[in-house]
Amino acid sequence: MSYKIVVRVLGFLLILEGLLMIPSLLVSVFYGQKDSIAFLISIGLTVLVGFIMSRVKESDKKLRTKEGLAIVSAGWVLASFFGCLPFVISGSIPSFIDAFFETISGLTTTGSTLVRDIEILPKGILFWRSFTHWIGGMGILVFAVAILPIIGVGGFQIFKAESPGPSPDKIVPRVKDTARILYITYISITVLQIVLLVAGGMSLYESAVHTFGTVGTGGFSTRNASVGAFKSTYIHIVITVFMVLSGANFSLYYGLYRGKWRDVIRNGELKLYLGIILASGLFIGLNIFYGSDAYKNIGTAFRDSFFQVGSIITTTGYATVDFDLWPVFSKMILLFLMFVGGCAGSTAGSIKNIRFLVLGKVIKRQVARTFHPNAYIPIKVDGKVVSEDVVSGISGFLMLYIIMFVFGVLLISLEGHDIGSTISSVATTLGNVGPGLGFVGPTRNFADFSPYSKLLFSFLMLMGRLELFTIIGLIAPRAWKNER
Amino acid sequence: MSYKIVVRVLGFLLILEGLLMIPSLLVSVFYGQKDSIAFLISIGLTVLVGFIMSRVKESDKKLRTKEGLAIVSAGWVLASFFGCLPFVISGSIPSFIDAFFETISGLTTTGSTLVRDIEILPKGILFWRSFTHWIGGMGILVFAVAILPIIGVGGFQIFKAESPGPSPDKIVPRVKDTARILYITYISITVLQIVLLVAGGMSLYESAVHTFGTVGTGGFSTRNASVGAFKSTYIHIVITVFMVLSGANFSLYYGLYRGKWRDVIRNGELKLYLGIILASGLFIGLNIFYGSDAYKNIGTAFRDSFFQVGSIITTTGYATVDFDLWPVFSKMILLFLMFVGGCAGSTAGSIKNIRFLVLGKVIKRQVARTFHPNAYIPIKVDGKVVSEDVVSGISGFLMLYIIMFVFGVLLISLEGHDIGSTISSVATTLGNVGPGLGFVGPTRNFADFSPYSKLLFSFLMLMGRLELFTIIGLIAPRAWKNER
Repeated sequence: MSYKIVVRVLGFLLILEGLLMIPSLLVSVFYGQKDSIAFLISIGLTVLVGFIMSRVKESDKKLRTKEGLAIVSAGWVLASFFGCLPFVISGSIPSFIDAFFETISGLTTTGSTLVRDIEILPKGILFWRSFTHWIGGMGILVFAVAILPIIGVGGFQIFKAESPGPSPDKIVPRVKDTARILYITYISITVLQIVLLVAGGMSLYESAVHTFGTVGTGGFSTRNASVGAFKSTYIHIVITVFMVLSGANFSLYYGLYRGKWRDVIRNGELKLYLGIILASGLFIGLNIFYGSDAYKNIGTAFRDSFFQVGSIITTTGYATVDFDLWPVFSKMILLFLMFVGGCAGSTAGSIKNIRFLVLGKVIKRQVARTFHPNAYIPIKVDGKVVSEDVVSGISGFLMLYIIMFVFGVLLISLEGHDIGSTISSVATTLGNVGPGLGFVGPTRNFADFSPYSKLLFSFLMLMGRLELFTIIGLIAPRAWKNER
Repeated sequence: MSYKIVVRVLGFLLILEGLLMIPSLLVSVFYGQKDSIAFLISIGLTVLVGFIMSRVKESDKKLRTKEGLAIVSAGWVLASFFGCLPFVISGSIPSFIDAFFETISGLTTTGSTLVRDIEILPKGILFWRSFTHWIGGMGILVFAVAILPIIGVGGFQIFKAESPGPSPDKIVPRVKDTARILYITYISITVLQIVLLVAGGMSLYESAVHTFGTVGTGGFSTRNASVGAFKSTYIHIVITVFMVLSGANFSLYYGLYRGKWRDVIRNGELKLYLGIILASGLFIGLNIFYGSDAYKNIGTAFRDSFFQVGSIITTTGYATVDFDLWPVFSKMILLFLMFVGGCAGSTAGSIKNIRFLVLGKVIKRQVARTFHPNAYIPIKVDGKVVSEDVVSGISGFLMLYIIMFVFGVLLISLEGHDIGSTISSVATTLGNVGPGLGFVGPTRNFADFSPYSKLLFSFLMLMGRLELFTIIGLIAPRAWKNER
């Protein structure tokens, strides 16, 4: 292990993080709140430590897989460590463990919170809290792609370490171009959503904060009632649409831009993703309308149903109603959606549709083999054969996900909450969703867990993000295919 | 599809089932209870219909895969249909759907019941109820192996259809010999357990009934409090040991008989199975002793902990305490054990240890591939390479199991019970375990579900049994290996 190069790269990462705190400082100064000083100290400290680390001289410029893995793992922990300074120093979240949990929840775009009263926090702090989603969503380390070439090392090792999904090596020769296209897409979507929210009467500040939470599929809000605090159906719909857009493979947008409509429409993962959203939204809408007394209007039922479905499947975690009060059928759908997640190459977490698509085809093949035991039947996605190594990798991933879930549930069950709360708290953190059911329902929070459990949840959020994180575009979809 | 041969084979199956009711008739006559007449009618009807069906002339003697599948599926349904006649005719379980549920629960060796007061039922009826476990455990269709050659068709197609586990074709050339060895083992274990229970002071009748439930990993008892009604620690221990023995691969016993101790001790699946039992038993024992006020003696805590662990992991379903009152940590372990199940080649249901063993090795391989992306790394179990087709089949199986579980939970959630009850009721029926948690806890039953849900549970029990059923010995373990 070449520690020096790891330290050096992490140093640049911290400098970047320090600089990324500047917008929050400006918000704080603009509103004249006393948290400005906390940001100044945090920025100073983060940049200083980063600068010192970045001065470590490297003897060896080659990044190998192990250095890549070390940078990724240590990078997220370090970024969360320094990222929580503004919360601690400003006194907004005085406990270090709590602030660390909140920051890791932000950077991993989970959105689970342990702040009991969000609305009393200073505006700069809330801006930073949601901005971590935006940074994390795109991947602190995607940004590093732009820096690593400057310091003279290639970014591929990090890409590989961070994306265990199928075929991460497909677009390697153009990793830097890919990253630039993705930034542009990401920023365009962000700007568009802010404009649409402002047009709907939301303040620029709250529009920005909620857009960070949406585009990064995070879910931190400025309000205790989350998006439910805004009564405008227009705003609910805009956020629903942008959550769903942010959970789709971003490279599809580039495909659209290049005019490859047919490839996008035929994309197998997109069809599965939209199909699940449609079916879940319909079933929940009917269930809450006919199965409870809460709705007089079926339109409102569908509005709320599609919002929560979009929020949970994309692992965003915003809420417009307390879905913990919904009938069990609807709650179970949401609980299962926590395991589905968005598409590969999006900012969403969890298992992701592409893996279920491939495993579904494995089932089909197994049925076919009952009748033709010796037939060679390749697994194809979008007309392309998926190698057996990748299929086996997906199975391993699913099994590992199950194992992490089981151990998480067993450890959290020591807290003694009911089964629904226990299971959903682990599913929501491991899947980087945000809220769960019961004790961690949308109107509640993670504050009452023991410090030990909070650290465990932080670990689960990190595991979920690290294992599942697929840098956008690393899975070559049809949209890119004709370019190589 | 050659319907004629299917009908003919099913006819013989029914004749066999009718004959298998005779012991229950004898019990009934012995105790002079009025259910004798119900057995006479049931036997007459079953044998008559079977006889008529068996007279269908076949033009084609070849059993293909599709006929095999048809026989297996229709065979279980038909056997459950006729098997429930004694319950309905005697008036013990007047509702047909209820009686069908109870019989399918018996034949699939699940042991979920909807009888509210077991102790008022006639002795012959209770004998038959548990005897279905014994029949089902060995597989009605394993018995058919002895009959099919007589009627002139080979049994292999049925074996294959009924055993989707890894490598079902390994001992095909000796299918009949295998079956005979297995009957002998099965009957020996049965006799041994009856003797040991009688020696412990249990009546011969109750010893037999509980042995059927143990060796078949079923779980029907003669008592409302299940095995907990017997206060003897000796009896608890005997049943614990025989449950664990019945959940292990039966061919290992043949291996022991042949003196192949080292192969048995080194068997990877056995080690995993015993390791999980040991760890679960220890953790639950400590949890119920230190985490609740129910136990003053740690020995008693471990006795109860190992009994329930053995009962759930082997998918038997007996209980000596109301484990639904245990701390959440212990309950969650039991819930997860419902998905583990016993070993391949046993009478146990659920996913089974061999599949987790293989998938664990897939994870290990995936980690290794991070560093050596192009290395060829075969998956080995007990020193033998597992083909990639089998590995892919296991992944497909796991995914299919998850899908069945998800749909089962969603449909049952319409009943509106809490999440723990909903999840565990589906896990316990799909895994052929028996009791669940909460609403379907060990002191409660399935009586209060709607007829629609009862049919769904019946379907899940059948699915669990059909998909997961591996005819004993069809997975060639090391114990057999040197013989080919």
